Amino acid sequence: LRRKTGNALFLKEYNRRRILSFVREHKSISGIMLSKLSGLAPKSVYEICDGLIQDGYLYEASIGSSGGGRKPVMLSLRPDYYYSIGIDIDVGMVRAVLMDITSTVKFELNERVDGINYEVYLGLMVKLIKTLYKRNKTDASKLLGVGLSVPGLIDIDSKKLIMAPNLKWENKDLINDLKQHLSCNIFVENEAMSSAFCEKWLGECKNDKDFICINIKSGIGAGIYTCGKPYRGARGSAGEIGHIPLSENGPLCGCKNRGCLETLASTNALLTNAKSAFEKEITLDGLIALAQGKNKAAEEIFNNAAQYLGLAISFLVNTYNPSKIILGKDFTKYAKFELDVIIDKVNGTALKHNASAVRIQPSSFGERASVLGAAILPQIQIF
Amino acid sequence: LRRKTGNALFLKEYNRRRILSFVREHKSISGIMLSKLSGLAPKSVYEICDGLIQDGYLYEASIGSSGGGRKPVMLSLRPDYYYSIGIDIDVGMVRAVLMDITSTVKFELNERVDGINYEVYLGLMVKLIKTLYKRNKTDASKLLGVGLSVPGLIDIDSKKLIMAPNLKWENKDLINDLKQHLSCNIFVENEAMSSAFCEKWLGECKNDKDFICINIKSGIGAGIYTCGKPYRGARGSAGEIGHIPLSENGPLCGCKNRGCLETLASTNALLTNAKSAFEKEITLDGLIALAQGKNKAAEEIFNNAAQYLGLAISFLVNTYNPSKIILGKDFTKYAKFELDVIIDKVNGTALKHNASAVRIQPSSFGERASVLGAAILPQIQIF
Repeated sequence: LRRKTGNALFLKEYNRRRILSFVREHKSISGIMLSKLSGLAPKSVYEICDGLIQDGYLYEASIGSSGGGRKPVMLSLRPDYYYSIGIDIDVGMVRAVLMDITSTVKFELNERVDGINYEVYLGLMVKLIKTLYKRNKTDASKLLGVGLSVPGLIDIDSKKLIMAPNLKWENKDLINDLKQHLSCNIFVENEAMSSAFCEKWLGECKNDKDFICINIKSGIGAGIYTCGKPYRGARGSAGEIGHIPLSENGPLCGCKNRGCLETLASTNALLTNAKSAFEKEITLDGLIALAQGKNKAAEEIFNNAAQYLGLAISFLVNTYNPSKIILGKDFTKYAKFELDVIIDKVNGTALKHNASAVRIQPSSFGERASVLGAAILPQIQIF
Repeated sequence: LRRKTGNALFLKEYNRRRILSFVREHKSISGIMLSKLSGLAPKSVYEICDGLIQDGYLYEASIGSSGGGRKPVMLSLRPDYYYSIGIDIDVGMVRAVLMDITSTVKFELNERVDGINYEVYLGLMVKLIKTLYKRNKTDASKLLGVGLSVPGLIDIDSKKLIMAPNLKWENKDLINDLKQHLSCNIFVENEAMSSAFCEKWLGECKNDKDFICINIKSGIGAGIYTCGKPYRGARGSAGEIGHIPLSENGPLCGCKNRGCLETLASTNALLTNAKSAFEKEITLDGLIALAQGKNKAAEEIFNNAAQYLGLAISFLVNTYNPSKIILGKDFTKYAKFELDVIIDKVNGTALKHNASAVRIQPSSFGERASVLGAAILPQIQIF
């Protein structure tokens, strides 16, 4: 009997999630349509929807059109009830958003940080989360949770941060450390995978099953979907493309090897190369301005980085055969100096069949993809 | 009503397959144990098993041990009823096996072919299939189908062969062409993916969710599993690792690029390098004998190839984070001259976290992995 009750509960929960997902996809949908899509009897759909309305997930929205007879009631996700908070930890910056379950960002905060001290970042995260929470004026029971996007390796079982090389953090239990200050569900994810969630949930990859998001900033990492699902590998560290070795005698990398992609094509690599070309420190904005003004040396710096990116992407195109590759973060600021070079390199290097199957494009979310993805993490649990 | 009947049929079929899979996994298992594993009521399990016995899939085997009371009847897959045939198409060779549903190979035939003429291969396949079929002395209704393993790119929708570079075949509809001569189900799969099926179904990777089989012979290709499932990519051409570009000024490849992995580390590459080192044609067996006799030039040829393989495998280890990499086909003949070099290269080049998560080893099936995988293709349909 216990087993049967377990199965029934499981099935009920499964169908609730499916209905909720259909409403999310369609934004506004009738019960009849939900019955058609789900294969459930109209009676069951109405029961589930009543429950979802009572629990604050759905509301009866505008009246839909009908082919005669009674006009159907349309159901939509309720924007003023459940919500989540997303935090993106970056070197020198913490971003935070509060997002309702219709994926609308209601509040957004970015704050600069000096240095890489873990306690300082922790304090700032708590402050930003509490600020957003107060600003929303809704009680704690509506907060589905906080999602964290971290530029590092997360252990697949313990969810602890194994290392974040560019922050020089090692073995940090972010979830536990935040729980000392907050009493809500906390989820943690690698920042490239957070971006992939954002592109799948809100962006260009809604209909792609096999795609790769590459985040290019101080380091380079990839978030990968295979067969419609996030792919993490056996120990949670798939997508470490920043450490693909491309040049045997290249610059020394933080991972102790030479010539990793990161040392050749990250934003840090651009700035290092700019410093040696112009014999002075140059900011990214400065370098972009120079390339904009057709400065040959600046153009060459972007071109070189793009060649290496194109080569690394050719490996991914040959081995993953993705339908899209999205280039995000800092890259979106200088895409116009690199994108065509990358695409040409891939077309010239990858297998024709695979090269012709992939679209390579910058993220439409600028630097925000991973903070939006972080906010999605707690919401995935209800859909 | 129609929908409900559809659901019930679907559920019944689903549970039949689960029971059959549990029996396959355990080889011999009681109804009570099946009930525990499946979560189904004993009555349902007995009903399903009765059906499976009547249909020829199962039989009541030896009596199991019991903790007192009635001794349970043990169920096993029936070896003398359903079977499949697997064909592996290789350059210069066609392999064929007849396998019963307990995965036992009952008959096996290998036949050499001169040249690469498509019609000649087709004729030979038909001959081998008919020979095996007759030898088995069981009627056609027990043949689950024929599986083909092909060294080329299969279109993910049409299942046509797009190209098999080393056979110089293009746009061949193998299934349709064979159906002119045979009236059974025919399945087709890339040969590296066939090997991956074999390793998952029968070999070292039964418990691995994320692993890669690399077939090294005239060309190099990979069959990949992600999240416990075969991964084919958006257009069916994931795993084309033979065309990873590793040396800008390397030998010209069939794909028209230079320095692809295939041109540096395939068996063909070994023989080309041997010819230029020894200034005469050398067979693979000859080269192996030389390395066995500690001939420096021969050892160096294997060492160089292994360095490139190690580099390519480092890319895969960083980006896929697999728990196993199985090296198969010709490689199994000369593994002892390359394996340690490959492992050292990966440990020195890939990210530590990823390198420590992977086991790299030769296939235990020698050159037979893909023909066994081909025979498994029709069997997957019933489990």
